[in-house]
Amino acid sequence: MTQPILLDCDPGLDDAVALLLAAGDPRVEIAAITTVAGNQTLAKVTDNARRLARLAGLDVPVAAGCERPLVRPPAWSTMHGDSGLGGVALEVEPVALDPRHAVDVIIGVVMSRPGEVTLVPIGPLTNIAMAVRKEPRIVENVREVVLMGGGYHSGNRTAVAEFNVLTDPEAAHIVFGEAWPLTMVGLDLTWQALATPDVMGRIGAVDTAAARLVVDMLGSYAEAYRSNHFASPPVHDPCAVARVIDPSVMTTRKAPLTVELCGTATLGMTVADFRDPDPQCTTQVAVDLDVERFWDLVVGALSQLSQPTKIN
Amino acid sequence: MTQPILLDCDPGLDDAVALLLAAGDPRVEIAAITTVAGNQTLAKVTDNARRLARLAGLDVPVAAGCERPLVRPPAWSTMHGDSGLGGVALEVEPVALDPRHAVDVIIGVVMSRPGEVTLVPIGPLTNIAMAVRKEPRIVENVREVVLMGGGYHSGNRTAVAEFNVLTDPEAAHIVFGEAWPLTMVGLDLTWQALATPDVMGRIGAVDTAAARLVVDMLGSYAEAYRSNHFASPPVHDPCAVARVIDPSVMTTRKAPLTVELCGTATLGMTVADFRDPDPQCTTQVAVDLDVERFWDLVVGALSQLSQPTKIN
Amino acid sequence: MTQPILLDCDPGLDDAVALLLAAGDPRVEIAAITTVAGNQTLAKVTDNARRLARLAGLDVPVAAGCERPLVRPPAWSTMHGDSGLGGVALEVEPVALDPRHAVDVIIGVVMSRPGEVTLVPIGPLTNIAMAVRKEPRIVENVREVVLMGGGYHSGNRTAVAEFNVLTDPEAAHIVFGEAWPLTMVGLDLTWQALATPDVMGRIGAVDTAAARLVVDMLGSYAEAYRSNHFASPPVHDPCAVARVIDPSVMTTRKAPLTVELCGTATLGMTVADFRDPDPQCTTQVAVDLDVERFWDLVVGALSQLSQPTKIN
Amino acid sequence: MTQPILLDCDPGLDDAVALLLAAGDPRVEIAAITTVAGNQTLAKVTDNARRLARLAGLDVPVAAGCERPLVRPPAWSTMHGDSGLGGVALEVEPVALDPRHAVDVIIGVVMSRPGEVTLVPIGPLTNIAMAVRKEPRIVENVREVVLMGGGYHSGNRTAVAEFNVLTDPEAAHIVFGEAWPLTMVGLDLTWQALATPDVMGRIGAVDTAAARLVVDMLGSYAEAYRSNHFASPPVHDPCAVARVIDPSVMTTRKAPLTVELCGTATLGMTVADFRDPDPQCTTQVAVDLDVERFWDLVVGALSQLSQPTKIN
Repeated sequence: MTQPILLDCDPGLDDAVALLLAAGDPRVEIAAITTVAGNQTLAKVTDNARRLARLAGLDVPVAAGCERPLVRPPAWSTMHGDSGLGGVALEVEPVALDPRHAVDVIIGVVMSRPGEVTLVPIGPLTNIAMAVRKEPRIVENVREVVLMGGGYHSGNRTAVAEFNVLTDPEAAHIVFGEAWPLTMVGLDLTWQALATPDVMGRIGAVDTAAARLVVDMLGSYAEAYRSNHFASPPVHDPCAVARVIDPSVMTTRKAPLTVELCGTATLGMTVADFRDPDPQCTTQVAVDLDVERFWDLVVGALSQLSQPTKIN
Repeated sequence: MTQPILLDCDPGLDDAVALLLAAGDPRVEIAAITTVAGNQTLAKVTDNARRLARLAGLDVPVAAGCERPLVRPPAWSTMHGDSGLGGVALEVEPVALDPRHAVDVIIGVVMSRPGEVTLVPIGPLTNIAMAVRKEPRIVENVREVVLMGGGYHSGNRTAVAEFNVLTDPEAAHIVFGEAWPLTMVGLDLTWQALATPDVMGRIGAVDTAAARLVVDMLGSYAEAYRSNHFASPPVHDPCAVARVIDPSVMTTRKAPLTVELCGTATLGMTVADFRDPDPQCTTQVAVDLDVERFWDLVVGALSQLSQPTKIN
Repeated sequence: MTQPILLDCDPGLDDAVALLLAAGDPRVEIAAITTVAGNQTLAKVTDNARRLARLAGLDVPVAAGCERPLVRPPAWSTMHGDSGLGGVALEVEPVALDPRHAVDVIIGVVMSRPGEVTLVPIGPLTNIAMAVRKEPRIVENVREVVLMGGGYHSGNRTAVAEFNVLTDPEAAHIVFGEAWPLTMVGLDLTWQALATPDVMGRIGAVDTAAARLVVDMLGSYAEAYRSNHFASPPVHDPCAVARVIDPSVMTTRKAPLTVELCGTATLGMTVADFRDPDPQCTTQVAVDLDVERFWDLVVGALSQLSQPTKIN
Repeated sequence: MTQPILLDCDPGLDDAVALLLAAGDPRVEIAAITTVAGNQTLAKVTDNARRLARLAGLDVPVAAGCERPLVRPPAWSTMHGDSGLGGVALEVEPVALDPRHAVDVIIGVVMSRPGEVTLVPIGPLTNIAMAVRKEPRIVENVREVVLMGGGYHSGNRTAVAEFNVLTDPEAAHIVFGEAWPLTMVGLDLTWQALATPDVMGRIGAVDTAAARLVVDMLGSYAEAYRSNHFASPPVHDPCAVARVIDPSVMTTRKAPLTVELCGTATLGMTVADFRDPDPQCTTQVAVDLDVERFWDLVVGALSQLSQPTKIN
């Protein structure tokens, strides 16, 4: 049985890899793609998502969502370039844009398949937060939430805050505060998913259109990260997808999670309380990645994408 | 020409008076009523709104909205009793509930009549904030926003914060931060609208069903306020409606407005900056009420409601 | 009987007037002068204080205190020029500098005359806060604290914060939180003490060295304030001294007071809670100034200063 | 050559061990002991310090300091019992109390031996913060500051805040913000210093009065920690002393440090920024403890204390 997911994203170089991983792996089914302002403007990330869907041969709804965070001003990433995809041009036609708002697509997909759909947000959490406030019943109708964002002992935009959460901390606070099973795949984990030269070689050897695109994108990403003291770039977003495909690809640890909304030095920090573990706790954080297996998943999916289109 | 308004409310004793004032005065047309959790739960305030619409002879959409604030936990008012209408029972059938979400009704009403509709929120601003994040174009398509909430030098739930704003300060921050013309009718103004024995006498003399209901409701309200050191209760929400009916019923002062989201002693305060007035400023606060004329409006509207139903 | 005061100051143009008022009026006795960084650096305000003491014929300890706020970085005022006294030069010899730290002088003066001394802080509250943390017993040994700072409905450095309090909000929080009788003479009151042309004329007519100096200083002050939309400058600091000389020169209102230490828009605000007055409350705010009488006090004191030196 | 230290403490069970370690090891000389409210009231911790000094044969000034934190209300520890020393009674005469305030002793000791003295604060940082604000020149006249407190990835009183720092976060902010060389020995390190049964056995075998006392105290401590999910108690404070005795007993990592003063979930967190190490950075955090060597130091010092009194 395949696992249906809704991918809420802001492509974004690593979002693109996440999307291709989800599209290529037979164990997940993309039920819909929704977009949110984050790495770039809503217009750009939506255009990117529509072209990536075409490239991946996906025939699923692609719907645009919120064009800015709930409370804070927008703050674009500097890691993904002006287009959101670094120097990479996607010369395929975009698939059609679903006329509905992402928030309504999220609600619709979850409510139409009670208990089945996993939400996989890999951008700022604005759309998901809006959806759960508009339709609170998605909490008990979702299967689980597996998101890329935050970090219990790591930050990139500040000493202790990660880009997706810091961009819309109130949305993250809303999402982390609901009673659904939630796995935070944060920087603590994703900094282990480095696109080393060896990894780049393996992907290059796949030699499909999708794989060549990934090589280009990761090259662009590596350049951006070199100015941030990373020899090889961490490829964040596919880690959340990998968790859904094969939970055993990473270890997790249960902990209550909250998002700091007021700190001077800690705004947007995802605070995990490891002091007194409660077995009933529904939130957990990703800890250790099986790096080898993770890249096997990515390489395997990219190989699949040379095959005839997967139609859900 | 009548002024179309959308009344976003949480009845609520003074909400009820506001609704009857809007229903009875010929200068405004209620385009829709939306409800939001605030004075009581969403279920209760929605039921109250539907019964009030029947009583006022209104044939307009009544749609339910958000059942809790964006970020903070819900915090019900203690001034409106268990039913939300004090000890008053509304023994009329509720009008039908519009199946759409309040957020979509707000967007729909505004976008279908560009430049015409005045939003009149008199509860927590959750619905309005959600609407403007879902459809940012309502900002330039609304006529103006005239809300009851806040206070530039006054607070009721804390020394400096008012109930509607403190209940969902992030929503208020969103609404106050948009570029639409906005009038904040806050406690500074509404504490002038006291339902004195004299006022109660005038309303009692109207002797219609609606007027009798108002007398009962204000009696209930007066009781709640007596424990808060008010000899006569301030009737907040109708002041915002009165401003739409006849702007000259109150004076206003331009000032940039922001909502404090982090203070220890000032959370939810509406901060008005009077230091350096900018003629371009689109936000203003209500200052002085023409008390006599305000009650004339209320009494006049209640008299109208003895007339055959007003159908928009 | 004269009232002994300790003047903790940062001269400062209006501090200078306050010092001369205290020096010239027979009803108060300056027990000591302590200085604190505020309007200008500690070195400059201390030098100014020592010269003003000479000019006023004072033979009292002048001791330097803290050179920066407790927690926040220093933030000099722009209203008092590079010297702290605008364009005015004090061409008298400074009196000797007391070798003790201001904090120890404050403690020493208070403890040596139990129940007698009124603290009159008219700059940031760093010294007073340090003194009360070093020697908590000054709380019950002081007569009262009458300070210039804050504002319950007014701000100058921000929409809601006043310079002295905002410069060291943690110190103010400490001082406002102790159980001593405390009167906050804030902007709400001091904005009534305007040095109008008429007032300037009256002071000019005194025709003593001190009065001529005050005319020069207020001229300098008026210029600084004109760029802040004041036709005539408010002369803040002498209002606190006037309150000690003659309490009936202003009305006050009891209210619990706290200082906001965390707000984004409200940092440094002095929050007064007027909702539920408690007769036991030991803090009060100044409300209305008897403007005529206030200037009578100033003019009278300046006239006295033409007399032979007052030696305490 | 011995290293002179000033021990600022709030004994406290682990403070007591720290004091005995410093007293017994020949490589450090205790120049003075100052006390601060923390684990218990100032009166109790000062009495404990005076008795411990007697027991350790110390002839040095013991001076009492601040009886409460700068801004926050006092919050006693629950780990050290009503006396501050668990169930242990110190039946020796207290040494005389130095009449000076701790703040003045700190300033005096540092300024009289420029460049020589290491400050070793192992309680809340109130005294040190007061000293540096009263006499800023101690910053360049101290040798270094080696403190027990905080945690870059660990908290005990909250998920991310440690007791000493959380008790007086503003003081910690002051101390961390000065330009002196500072080593934060936090929970990340001290949770490695566990008093295991094996360790207890080694100390018990020393069989001196001091060692027997430590066995009793650690027994009391172990009991308190068992309710906090620790099989053996971490012995925090001696780790800072051990760092001064032999820096190689632990590894450190440079990082800018700040203390969160406003966060809802992060108040009192010590935020270390490891992203972009600056070789000029003067602050560092303790990372890994050489556990074996650490306990060797403690056992060695306790053995020394059976010897004739060390007089500095």
